[in-house]
Amino acid sequence: MSTATLNAPAILSPEEILKHWQGHRGLTRRVIEAFPEKELFEFSIGGMRPFSQLALEAVGIATGIDGMAYGNWTPFEELEAKGNAIKTKEELLAYWDEVTEKINAEWSAMTPERFRARENSWGFFEGPVIDILLYFIDNEVHHRGQGYVYLRALGIEPPKFYER
Amino acid sequence: MSTATLNAPAILSPEEILKHWQGHRGLTRRVIEAFPEKELFEFSIGGMRPFSQLALEAVGIATGIDGMAYGNWTPFEELEAKGNAIKTKEELLAYWDEVTEKINAEWSAMTPERFRARENSWGFFEGPVIDILLYFIDNEVHHRGQGYVYLRALGIEPPKFYER
Repeated sequence: MSTATLNAPAILSPEEILKHWQGHRGLTRRVIEAFPEKELFEFSIGGMRPFSQLALEAVGIATGIDGMAYGNWTPFEELEAKGNAIKTKEELLAYWDEVTEKINAEWSAMTPERFRARENSWGFFEGPVIDILLYFIDNEVHHRGQGYVYLRALGIEPPKFYER
Repeated sequence: MSTATLNAPAILSPEEILKHWQGHRGLTRRVIEAFPEKELFEFSIGGMRPFSQLALEAVGIATGIDGMAYGNWTPFEELEAKGNAIKTKEELLAYWDEVTEKINAEWSAMTPERFRARENSWGFFEGPVIDILLYFIDNEVHHRGQGYVYLRALGIEPPKFYER
């Protein structure tokens, strides 16, 4: 983290980044809702995971707000165990909403300085918190795009991508 | 654009945003390359567009660097006409590379102040340039994720998502 970087004008504020992230998460929630119960947990194309698994990956990763805000990374095996216990759309949406509220509640710790702090997200990536968060968002958008193909293949109109 | 925003510490620098965007564009280029010629232009699932059309949308939108940097938005019909004229993978990749160089060449105009300037991108969205660019990137990641499903359905291993 260089002083030069911290003194440069701000391109994005923490509040704007929160709105961006939660806007994406709200859209992904609507994609989960659009799936019929059975297809959410079973339908796939080309040997890929069903959308429930892709969404559980996204919501598990989003609990990384603890790591980004406080450096407290829940062991990944715990997150996987939590995901594996979820068997219905209702349980998945409840988990999703719990994490949405958690992110909002912890966001006050996400100062500009904190975004430039280095963290190691579950051993997968080490770098500034902003890079970790951008990766989380990109990963969710990537998998959600895959969910759109599943929905189209099922003959279901997905939510509009540009509505957040 | 508030003075407060411009005086806050910087979370992202223009150079980091360029690297982030071009990293995504490099990955999308490898996804284009991974498609066999015929399937790039013809394969689809659930009535969606073939991946060539999704990639042409992304590269056309990326020419919006002119709009973001200088407020000069090429008429969308011109971009569509340019896309419609592209009939081979080689032509698509050449267009992709041309826009990659264009973005790099014009990036010096993308100052922090410019990122906070308001623009109207082809009548679809009006707001700060940073929001326009984030939308461009998200749209590409979304459609590229769909290309991953097409590749898997074709029995082709896609490039690693985390390699940029």
